[in-house]
Amino acid sequence: MTKFNIQRPDPAIEGAAIDRINNLTKPKGSLGRLEELALQLALIQQTLRPRLKNPHNILFAADHGIIEEGVSVSPKEVTWQQLGHFAKGGAGINFLCNQHGFKLVLVDAGVDYDIPSGSGIIDMKMGRGTRNFLHGPAMTVDEFDECLKRGARVVDMVAENGCNVLSFGEMGSGNTSSSSMWMSILTGIPIEECIGAGAGLDNPGIARKRDVLGRAMAGCSAESLIEKLAWTGGYEMAMAVGGMLRAAELGMVVLVDGFIMTACIAAAMAINPEVKHYAIFGHCGDESGHRRMLDAIGAKPLISLGLRLGEGSGAVCAFPIVDSAARMICEMDTFADVDVTKYFD
Amino acid sequence: MTKFNIQRPDPAIEGAAIDRINNLTKPKGSLGRLEELALQLALIQQTLRPRLKNPHNILFAADHGIIEEGVSVSPKEVTWQQLGHFAKGGAGINFLCNQHGFKLVLVDAGVDYDIPSGSGIIDMKMGRGTRNFLHGPAMTVDEFDECLKRGARVVDMVAENGCNVLSFGEMGSGNTSSSSMWMSILTGIPIEECIGAGAGLDNPGIARKRDVLGRAMAGCSAESLIEKLAWTGGYEMAMAVGGMLRAAELGMVVLVDGFIMTACIAAAMAINPEVKHYAIFGHCGDESGHRRMLDAIGAKPLISLGLRLGEGSGAVCAFPIVDSAARMICEMDTFADVDVTKYFD
Repeated sequence: MTKFNIQRPDPAIEGAAIDRINNLTKPKGSLGRLEELALQLALIQQTLRPRLKNPHNILFAADHGIIEEGVSVSPKEVTWQQLGHFAKGGAGINFLCNQHGFKLVLVDAGVDYDIPSGSGIIDMKMGRGTRNFLHGPAMTVDEFDECLKRGARVVDMVAENGCNVLSFGEMGSGNTSSSSMWMSILTGIPIEECIGAGAGLDNPGIARKRDVLGRAMAGCSAESLIEKLAWTGGYEMAMAVGGMLRAAELGMVVLVDGFIMTACIAAAMAINPEVKHYAIFGHCGDESGHRRMLDAIGAKPLISLGLRLGEGSGAVCAFPIVDSAARMICEMDTFADVDVTKYFD
Repeated sequence: MTKFNIQRPDPAIEGAAIDRINNLTKPKGSLGRLEELALQLALIQQTLRPRLKNPHNILFAADHGIIEEGVSVSPKEVTWQQLGHFAKGGAGINFLCNQHGFKLVLVDAGVDYDIPSGSGIIDMKMGRGTRNFLHGPAMTVDEFDECLKRGARVVDMVAENGCNVLSFGEMGSGNTSSSSMWMSILTGIPIEECIGAGAGLDNPGIARKRDVLGRAMAGCSAESLIEKLAWTGGYEMAMAVGGMLRAAELGMVVLVDGFIMTACIAAAMAINPEVKHYAIFGHCGDESGHRRMLDAIGAKPLISLGLRLGEGSGAVCAFPIVDSAARMICEMDTFADVDVTKYFD
């Protein structure tokens, strides 16, 4: 299995960072979560002047064999259609990336379609979708490991652009099913409590999804954690896990998107818990179970706007708040700089 | 009393706006609050292509006679010191305005200090602070009305810059006391339940504030709503009310900041309920009672980051989300534009 050597940020800088934040010209604590974020950024970047540079949103797309079981409202062809649409612009993630200065990096992790060359989509295709995990493993452990490597390779490409903050997104009809399986495996919450509407299932659809995933969980004979993740996962999800681990290894800030990417960071944390120091949780979405999964891994998302689009949208939407934290500690005066009475301890 | 002629947005456009939002290339409803905001913006601007232009944050500053009673942790000189600091840059509101492209407009509404000319601060001074409302009215009804006019005049100046979205902020040691009084007067919630820590009172300080404001409420012999608002208000608050009402009259989007500005929009709504159609609530802060006041006026804030700085910071912080909504409806393709299967009703 690929190893990621993630450093826990040296806490030596913590005292100086807290001192600077407390001496900015505002009542102590009055910038709330921005102050917590500024401290985390100072630790990650090991400086009292953290800056976010050249943000990228890496979007992995893949298909899922489990979709044969009727667990998704969106047909399989939506995966490649939307991937092509992202490449042309005009989708949800495009306007958000444009607004916040993100470069959008599109990766074919395993879409069931021959993506035309020259489309600008990075070819990391593991196959034409995973196998149906109701009847056996979606992928082998070797394939899972190869996904980690390929996800890490995409992050290496992006790091060459001087990027120090990344979000990860996904496109893959059926991938909330894999995410529910991962959530249950990683948190111990029973699978039936990890299942929601995905892109828009009605109640009978959710009942069917619950039945299928319940049988899949019962039929999963994998033993180790990695075997279980491989059995039930998606290529795009495993690549995101590799990407997150590599980003943390490189000291980058990892912005976590919604339900699916929360399942991925939970998997990354199970592989190497130090990744958590680099993770900032963007959005708590509407997908049933997202809040419970966030609570289970001790994560506090920044915003909650009822988004359930995926693609990295919640993470990119939350970026300005993270950037505000960096700007706060870099751009605000301290009481020592100006003639303002410091009116609190 | 100055009258504001605010038009309720013509609902004729609503059907077309909802139809466009539902046909954007995403699962229906999957952009959550952005979809609600896009509809509101379409109504306000009466177009399916709403755009936010030249945002301004108007910050009114004034002093408060009630501060003599020891209700604030910040001494009075902090008001003019911070106002000067905003003019030079380096305060909390400055980095947020810089980040999000806001022009910061500073107004002396009634600071107890001679602001040097040439400082770039607009002179709308009503006096050197209000009177102590424990012993009589903080201002007369005529002064209150004059504040409405002056606040409106500042908005007219800003409108000439082609601005169609405004936030309002404040600086005024002691102004959470006036805001608690307004909250109680406007919502009927007992005054003792409307009181919090302000800029950082400890528990004995909060108890003293509760005692002072309880006595002030008992001693307030004003009869009409306007007389009560004048008796207990602040110059900067009354100007913000006038500014909000005028902005709505001009069809501008009004971004509402924290506790104090929520008290001001509540007052504006009491004067003319139509202002609410133009208001977008940015932030729910930590000040005790803020959530209750928002609930009482039926407002749903966009973010909740534990900010309690004032200055307009919460509203400016929330601006990118509102801008995302405008960009969504303007920049996303509909299913009719592209070859993506529409996979929901």
